[in-house]
Amino acid sequence: MRKGITGRSRSVKKSAVKTVISVDAMGGDLGVSVVIDGMAQAATKTPELSFLVHGDEREITPILAKRKVLTDRVQVRHTGSVVNMHDRPSHVMRHGKGTSMWSSLEAVRQKEASVAVSCGNTGALMALSMIRLRKAKGVKRPAIAILWPSLNPQGFNVVLDVGADIRADAQDLKIFALMGASYARNGLGLEWPRIGLLNVGTEDHKGKPELHEANEIIAADAKTNNFKYVGFVEGGDIPSDKVDVIVTDGFTGNVALKTGEGTANLIGLRMRQAFTRNIFAKISAMFVLRNLRYLRQRIDPRQVNGGVFLGLNGTVIKSHGAADATGVEAAIRLAYQLSQLGFNEKLAARVAYGLHNSQDVFDASNDPLAEPDK
Amino acid sequence: MRKGITGRSRSVKKSAVKTVISVDAMGGDLGVSVVIDGMAQAATKTPELSFLVHGDEREITPILAKRKVLTDRVQVRHTGSVVNMHDRPSHVMRHGKGTSMWSSLEAVRQKEASVAVSCGNTGALMALSMIRLRKAKGVKRPAIAILWPSLNPQGFNVVLDVGADIRADAQDLKIFALMGASYARNGLGLEWPRIGLLNVGTEDHKGKPELHEANEIIAADAKTNNFKYVGFVEGGDIPSDKVDVIVTDGFTGNVALKTGEGTANLIGLRMRQAFTRNIFAKISAMFVLRNLRYLRQRIDPRQVNGGVFLGLNGTVIKSHGAADATGVEAAIRLAYQLSQLGFNEKLAARVAYGLHNSQDVFDASNDPLAEPDK
Repeated sequence: MRKGITGRSRSVKKSAVKTVISVDAMGGDLGVSVVIDGMAQAATKTPELSFLVHGDEREITPILAKRKVLTDRVQVRHTGSVVNMHDRPSHVMRHGKGTSMWSSLEAVRQKEASVAVSCGNTGALMALSMIRLRKAKGVKRPAIAILWPSLNPQGFNVVLDVGADIRADAQDLKIFALMGASYARNGLGLEWPRIGLLNVGTEDHKGKPELHEANEIIAADAKTNNFKYVGFVEGGDIPSDKVDVIVTDGFTGNVALKTGEGTANLIGLRMRQAFTRNIFAKISAMFVLRNLRYLRQRIDPRQVNGGVFLGLNGTVIKSHGAADATGVEAAIRLAYQLSQLGFNEKLAARVAYGLHNSQDVFDASNDPLAEPDK
Repeated sequence: MRKGITGRSRSVKKSAVKTVISVDAMGGDLGVSVVIDGMAQAATKTPELSFLVHGDEREITPILAKRKVLTDRVQVRHTGSVVNMHDRPSHVMRHGKGTSMWSSLEAVRQKEASVAVSCGNTGALMALSMIRLRKAKGVKRPAIAILWPSLNPQGFNVVLDVGADIRADAQDLKIFALMGASYARNGLGLEWPRIGLLNVGTEDHKGKPELHEANEIIAADAKTNNFKYVGFVEGGDIPSDKVDVIVTDGFTGNVALKTGEGTANLIGLRMRQAFTRNIFAKISAMFVLRNLRYLRQRIDPRQVNGGVFLGLNGTVIKSHGAADATGVEAAIRLAYQLSQLGFNEKLAARVAYGLHNSQDVFDASNDPLAEPDK
């Protein structure tokens, strides 16, 4: 297995020019300084990185001045307004020009930067991304994909859509399968990712009509598109090793994601209570500090922060609104790696190939587009 | 706060006749003996309990003979066939007569037992329950409600529907709110339970059209129906203390439930790995055994096993298919407590009251049905 996003970065051409990431400094819950700290952490580990930063320069410049590692590696684009967490996407689509979010996407559109990263309002970011970058050919609904800690050797599964759109018909779900497979292939180094379709049971008769239809068309297209289709999977399979990519509509995926996070938080809290509830518990906790630290590393959600917007003419990464510097760093690292892989071009080619050859009897070895995303 | 299902059992009239629970002995993943062990555990703690057991008497009788506590407290109803885990509900509806599941429901229909408990196929159990017990007046879609470990003082929140039906319109969601409130009031002892509607965000514009409509009609009916409406909640709020009852359609609820279980299982496994990965980890784990045991008690899903079917003329409890004896015991304990509370009659009255007084300006103090489920 090739290592990808979650392991060591895969060998990339050293001749590659410096990678410029476009960062929206505003709109995160914890403020500008956390975003810049995340940039500084990423820059320390990755000398090839430089940044275009968008936001209020009166806030940004003094903080930047204190981070020596960022000297001469950051260009600030001043913007006068900010998209707030509770702004409606429809409002932002009409009035978003001049915001830091808009400006960060514009840099990708103008090819000044390869990937945009924002901690802001997800709905607004997707709406502006669709306006500025436009949907990739053949994609009706873009999707947000995340990495979900799993029992697989690669440590993570891909789940999409986790909230770009509350709807998805069978054709959308098929495109999600193509895009999710491409993300798993490039990001996780899986040559034949296993795709599952999220449902309330694994039997063919379970679930909604659009799932039955999607179940058939995804199965029919699996082989020509270099993935395995495992059929319906259930919520309990999301973190399992039965599947690598879980495909669902954005309503269900969003509820699943937040339910998983909520459950993990509850257990984390109960664990802290168990180890701090009295003096004996606290003393005994000292004996297992190494174990607890090991555990935290294995389930720390900050290590895989970053929802990737798939299906646009450009890569956009949504960092968690409440991300701290470690979370922002993870999102920037993901941006860097996807950029190095030329991921967006590969994904677009894969979707075009998948649509072109849909359900045809087709000899892949004769096609000029064969295996476009490898 | 009155204590309910999850605390000590509330004071019940000692004059009450013996409570008979109807138990489907077949169809669980772990076989008949686990079901009978669960009955024996419950019978040991609750002398008022007796059972009608349905299934293959050649299997049941020898196992029963070894459980002294059950002597003279169990009547076996022999049935020749079993509903399997993968039988389609539509098939079971046509051919289910003569199965242990059918027989266990028939006993409730004939008022020989107050509640039926089965570890079998959920879809089949709901389908047969609708045929034999019929839907309660005013209920178009019955729902399955479960208790979800939470940060609330009562330790659990109610979530419904977790899989009775994959669909729910606004009116169904309103009935779910009424039924969920009644369950929380009776089962958890909350006089004014807080109801939330599951969505992908808390802002009013988020989510699907039926959720917007339900958001309005549930809010309008809250006061006359003795609950508080907190509006939209997200997946992360399910285990929180912001809400007591989470209302959703059965597709979303089922995915959320299984995702929560899957997440908890993954963390549990990682925890075992952290405390067993080498000899040092194992030794240090010995120092915190008490803490780990305390933790397990707080998050052990077997302690709250049992989905309750709401909206039928009779109470049916679905135990987890893979439940062990402790899980089956929990489901039987729940059955006993709901029976003692006269829960099903109170719920029916509450739904009738809620529909009768829907969105009316209404003086509750003058209504003969006022506060029917207290």
